[in-house]
Amino acid sequence: MAAAAAASAVATPSLILGPAKRITGLGRSTANVSTGPAQRLRPNRRCFILAKYLFAINTPLSSGSLLTTPPPQSRYPHIASRQIQTIVAEPRMPRLSLGNINPHVVEAKYAVRGELAVKSEEYRARLRNGDNSLPFSEVISANIGNPQQLDQKPITFFRQVLSILEYPKLLDNEKVLLDGLGYKPDVLERAKFLLKNLGSVGAYSASAGVPAIKESIAKFLERRDGFPADPAHIYLSAGASSGVNTLLHILTADPTSGILVPIPQYPLYTASLSVLNARCVPYYLDEAANWGTSLETIKEAYNKAKSEGTDVRAIVIINPGNPTGASLPESDIRSVLQFAAEEQLVVLADEVYQTNVFVGKFHSFRQVLLTLQKENPGDIYDGVELASLHSISKGMVGECGHRGGYFDLIGFDKEVEAQIYKFVSIMLCAPVIGQCLVELMVNPPVKGDPSYPLYKEEYDAIFEGLRKRATALYAAFKDMEGVECGEPQGSMYLFPTIHVSPRAAEAAKEEGRTPDEFYCMRLLEATGVCVVPGSGFGQREGSLHFRTTFLAPGTEWVSSIKKFHREFMDKYR
Amino acid sequence: MAAAAAASAVATPSLILGPAKRITGLGRSTANVSTGPAQRLRPNRRCFILAKYLFAINTPLSSGSLLTTPPPQSRYPHIASRQIQTIVAEPRMPRLSLGNINPHVVEAKYAVRGELAVKSEEYRARLRNGDNSLPFSEVISANIGNPQQLDQKPITFFRQVLSILEYPKLLDNEKVLLDGLGYKPDVLERAKFLLKNLGSVGAYSASAGVPAIKESIAKFLERRDGFPADPAHIYLSAGASSGVNTLLHILTADPTSGILVPIPQYPLYTASLSVLNARCVPYYLDEAANWGTSLETIKEAYNKAKSEGTDVRAIVIINPGNPTGASLPESDIRSVLQFAAEEQLVVLADEVYQTNVFVGKFHSFRQVLLTLQKENPGDIYDGVELASLHSISKGMVGECGHRGGYFDLIGFDKEVEAQIYKFVSIMLCAPVIGQCLVELMVNPPVKGDPSYPLYKEEYDAIFEGLRKRATALYAAFKDMEGVECGEPQGSMYLFPTIHVSPRAAEAAKEEGRTPDEFYCMRLLEATGVCVVPGSGFGQREGSLHFRTTFLAPGTEWVSSIKKFHREFMDKYR
Repeated sequence: MAAAAAASAVATPSLILGPAKRITGLGRSTANVSTGPAQRLRPNRRCFILAKYLFAINTPLSSGSLLTTPPPQSRYPHIASRQIQTIVAEPRMPRLSLGNINPHVVEAKYAVRGELAVKSEEYRARLRNGDNSLPFSEVISANIGNPQQLDQKPITFFRQVLSILEYPKLLDNEKVLLDGLGYKPDVLERAKFLLKNLGSVGAYSASAGVPAIKESIAKFLERRDGFPADPAHIYLSAGASSGVNTLLHILTADPTSGILVPIPQYPLYTASLSVLNARCVPYYLDEAANWGTSLETIKEAYNKAKSEGTDVRAIVIINPGNPTGASLPESDIRSVLQFAAEEQLVVLADEVYQTNVFVGKFHSFRQVLLTLQKENPGDIYDGVELASLHSISKGMVGECGHRGGYFDLIGFDKEVEAQIYKFVSIMLCAPVIGQCLVELMVNPPVKGDPSYPLYKEEYDAIFEGLRKRATALYAAFKDMEGVECGEPQGSMYLFPTIHVSPRAAEAAKEEGRTPDEFYCMRLLEATGVCVVPGSGFGQREGSLHFRTTFLAPGTEWVSSIKKFHREFMDKYR
Repeated sequence: MAAAAAASAVATPSLILGPAKRITGLGRSTANVSTGPAQRLRPNRRCFILAKYLFAINTPLSSGSLLTTPPPQSRYPHIASRQIQTIVAEPRMPRLSLGNINPHVVEAKYAVRGELAVKSEEYRARLRNGDNSLPFSEVISANIGNPQQLDQKPITFFRQVLSILEYPKLLDNEKVLLDGLGYKPDVLERAKFLLKNLGSVGAYSASAGVPAIKESIAKFLERRDGFPADPAHIYLSAGASSGVNTLLHILTADPTSGILVPIPQYPLYTASLSVLNARCVPYYLDEAANWGTSLETIKEAYNKAKSEGTDVRAIVIINPGNPTGASLPESDIRSVLQFAAEEQLVVLADEVYQTNVFVGKFHSFRQVLLTLQKENPGDIYDGVELASLHSISKGMVGECGHRGGYFDLIGFDKEVEAQIYKFVSIMLCAPVIGQCLVELMVNPPVKGDPSYPLYKEEYDAIFEGLRKRATALYAAFKDMEGVECGEPQGSMYLFPTIHVSPRAAEAAKEEGRTPDEFYCMRLLEATGVCVVPGSGFGQREGSLHFRTTFLAPGTEWVSSIKKFHREFMDKYR
């Protein structure tokens, strides 16, 4: 009777949740009700019990806290105070929580866009909103190889073609394009060629890419390597990352499947292997030999993994290296291929930085493998399975936002290729505009074409600009106490070693960070320069590094790094 | 001694592989050597043994065949014939084969681009190369919702903006754009707005998308649903497919994780769950009720799965339906949300066809959920976790090739969202041009804008065109013996039931196909019209369907389907 009276007397802002039968219906979370068995209740609700009815008030109650003040007696004068009891509400667990979602996703680490990157974006937003309290006036995102975010201008020929692909009606006004806007005739021709072959850039292409674009890539591979290429084994992808994702999905079969991955490495590999619940088999690059591959180290890592029951299936090579910048000599590539052939490992050659080479010459795995096959007919190289990846995001193209790339396969089983085809089909196709940029990258204007002079000028200026910035940054690192850095060879990064004092290491530990994370966080706070700690890429135990791009223009940011470094060293001496 | 003599005497086209120690080094495959223990040898090599040396000749030997003719005695006159022995070469297994790659990828089925699609592309290539032997002159790809591959023209406003985004230097010639090319001022304004906010479309954006674009989406959601939206919970994706891939990656934790998926369904869901090695918990849509959801059926499926030990975590709803075209009434959505709230299931609302609605009105899950929360404050709806997906590929936009889309989250745990953020970071960002198209889709010209009249004209013409084609196709199906089809309600598809005779079923069986696959294969061969068998989407045991888009222009292809159907029915009567 008391219960019924209470229910009818409650004012509307409170909600009757009881009796118990109905509470159970809420079906979500738990609350320890002081008068009875545990009841399930949503979190952050202020609750109390009147007789056997449970009430909730629309006021937040923090996790686990006790509602010490029962609802004011004055509001419920007809209820004896002993009938009013309070409960402790425990937070309702949402259906999805860190503890019950995919643990392999949770395990994955991806430092390039991690805590430091997020913090740098916060700083950027504060600066944009007029915050003057920071010790810097600009955030320099040296953490990502994102050329066009910094200074790099897109290549005019590429973008003029794309503008027509996006709005083909421009071709109804050729005279305006040519005379009014300065488009060259080869721009129009290329746009027409692509439109003829793909229809609309708004239509899905074939799953593996537009056939005519695959043919252009095959011709490029032939020119580059001196061996014919078959478009049937070329797959367009949304950047090289998506290609790596596809290949690792196919390559790994169960938790014992392992892939040899260089350390330091671009964390895409370890992150993807985490998500796939497969094993990364790390092999260290040789810092003393300018981050080259050491066959001995690879063999050691391979044998160790095998002895631990890992089914090692493939070896990843990043050449030129990310984050190291190392550009491999042909002899290193030959050794790796011989090892892969002997142990029957699939080779994944990540060659997205193939045009970012300052020292020596880029050698493609494809070219070296086909040469070995030619030199040694019928020998062990014949059946080697090689996947080579390329991208429009790097090099002088730098079109990251367009998400274009491709991989080409040599020696893969036909049935396996059918599975790769099916896998890429599920995501339908790579972005078609990105595919077109791949075509433009592999088939740029050549001498004699109307667009060639400007193309060459722009291309060379970007290349020289990168080289100059790399050299300037390298010179600065050489000048810094406790910093060692190899000469810039290629890619977009330097990966200096830093030596910090025991006091700095101690301070890092207190903050729950590794010393390199600690260093990079302080650098960001002091200068607005965002780099990535070496631990994000893997580094030999006891060694510390950070990765920085050399894309940002000017020298001021380099000076600010030097100044910060001096102060950091002094502070923790 | 004989061995040494043999080795030195062999002519160059043959290759000395022995002695055994070196053979082992080949490390690849097996060959049963008649004189000794099994030796490993690559396949397709003609081999023979001279004394204890193993030789290979560069001539293919087919799998398992016996080299019955030893090498001609005349070439090796100094070797006694008894010293020449032959071996049987077994094929070398490449490192990767169907039997050892990721079994979950192998298990995945994706019929939309399966055997029929591949065959249709072969036909298309034959026609292009002048093959006159086929009984049709054109291939109609009615298997994929790919509007711009068929007849749909892109919206002018969208593409004009994109042309400027690709080549911002166009803005240096505003007069040419406005007067020479007919761009309206709002085109230029929008392009400037986007460029100001994203810098270059060639730069990576933030992982979850360009902040200003997320803000535009939030405003769209507010207008559409009448409830505020928070850009922080919006994630741009490469089409809705990539969003589904992300969400399923997070949602599934181990092989017992299950997701309720409508049957028939778009095979992205089953394929992705296969790859993730998680369980699809199928619930049948109610064909008799125009493919609506039946709560009873959902509950049955849910309880059955739970009793089998499946940890059911979410329910997928495709509304409007693919392949069914069904557009759900609000009452169905309310029931689903109540069920999801009671059983604490995450709701995945795939709403990519939200503007393709011919009958009734589209109700978003978001709007209905927020209404339920408002109507029932403090009740079970408060904590519901809802992910809604949208895309630029469908509707009157139809920009499939640009791979744009987004999902927005309600009620997700903060830590879970952090994992979603990390997961999308690994692939860096959605294509930026696709993101811009999302912005244009959710924020199109409105009354009073210079581009509005043309936008409206184009939009309405596409809508009416689709409706007319749907109606014409529906009328044709109604007219066909043994075919039943619901009235077109939405999306881009019809999904008629077909009844085939026992003789046709028998003929299908003989070909190793399901009767619907058999029917669709014959249809393609006879007419060039490519549709997808119902088994590709799932269908009730014993029922047969196919899915066809109604995107192709003209009526000729519809007549050819009718004609084929008549002949098929007669043939197998």
